Amino acid sequence: MKTLEEKILKEGTVLPGNILKVNSFLNHRLDVDFLMEIGKEISRLFADEKIDKILTIETSGIAIAVAAASEMHLPVVFAKKHKSKNLSDDLYTTIVHSFTHGTDYTVVVSKEFLSKGERVLIIDDFLANGKALIGLIDILNQAGAKTVGCCCVIEKGFQGGGDALRAQGIRVESLAIVDEMTDATVTFR
Amino acid sequence: MKTLEEKILKEGTVLPGNILKVNSFLNHRLDVDFLMEIGKEISRLFADEKIDKILTIETSGIAIAVAAASEMHLPVVFAKKHKSKNLSDDLYTTIVHSFTHGTDYTVVVSKEFLSKGERVLIIDDFLANGKALIGLIDILNQAGAKTVGCCCVIEKGFQGGGDALRAQGIRVESLAIVDEMTDATVTFR
Repeated sequence: MKTLEEKILKEGTVLPGNILKVNSFLNHRLDVDFLMEIGKEISRLFADEKIDKILTIETSGIAIAVAAASEMHLPVVFAKKHKSKNLSDDLYTTIVHSFTHGTDYTVVVSKEFLSKGERVLIIDDFLANGKALIGLIDILNQAGAKTVGCCCVIEKGFQGGGDALRAQGIRVESLAIVDEMTDATVTFR
Repeated sequence: MKTLEEKILKEGTVLPGNILKVNSFLNHRLDVDFLMEIGKEISRLFADEKIDKILTIETSGIAIAVAAASEMHLPVVFAKKHKSKNLSDDLYTTIVHSFTHGTDYTVVVSKEFLSKGERVLIIDDFLANGKALIGLIDILNQAGAKTVGCCCVIEKGFQGGGDALRAQGIRVESLAIVDEMTDATVTFR
């Protein structure tokens, strides 16, 4: 998505630890008119698929999922991140390792909001090593739901998570794929 | 908002501790088509005001703020909840007491995303004792920004937070105000 690449080049900052900071439109301030354009693009990319629901994960996935869902007229379920390991039986749970923070966290979705046979599109803001997506796919598998595909706004291609999922036959669409980034510039695939 | 009251009556559950659970459309699963109607209603309510920006707080405020912002063509800033008290100088911070959890948490907004003189509408999902709104107003005051008003989806009127803010001259609009709730029913103002 050309306008997204331009926005990343204009507003993004590369921080130590391979962090691409896009707080001005995606992760703290939300450029909502632009997010609605992103939602339209996601809708266009998956127009050939029958989709029943969008699954995302708090916090930064929510705005993007809502933008896409408003265009596609679908409900969204957002997975929650839990510190606690004492969880009730009515939750699907999975453990996700955070590369950024070096810790594990538990991701949960209420069983009442995912149904067997449902066709679900997963949406998130960033795709790096793919651990969050793998966790969400695990939850969909537990529910007996079908992962139609994954759509991320920015993929850090050099971290390999997206390509590993594609190699497993999962449809992964990213609106911008960063193949290299330095203090000076960001190079897209 | 009549359709909201109907939805609360149909899908809401009253839990011990004065909790109104509306996970099926507002706090876990998001009924996005309905949220977009909520966004239109917020836009209509504040049509007479000049507004530069919407401020909300993670997590559940984000979807509602995005719905309103897409209708009003405004950017959103969402305040973040922090555990840590070691924060950088480039943040506005305030302490909010959580009635539900009995703990204090720190709320932060990057200074770069609020400007002096900006006219800001605060949006949140629930209004109970008003502590979260008071925290967000404090942050706007620190920034020298103007609080145009507060708009919440569901106000628990019997907890008094909304009326206390109104008594201070702050414009508070809630799309549904619950005046009483029991296991059996919810009564609206």
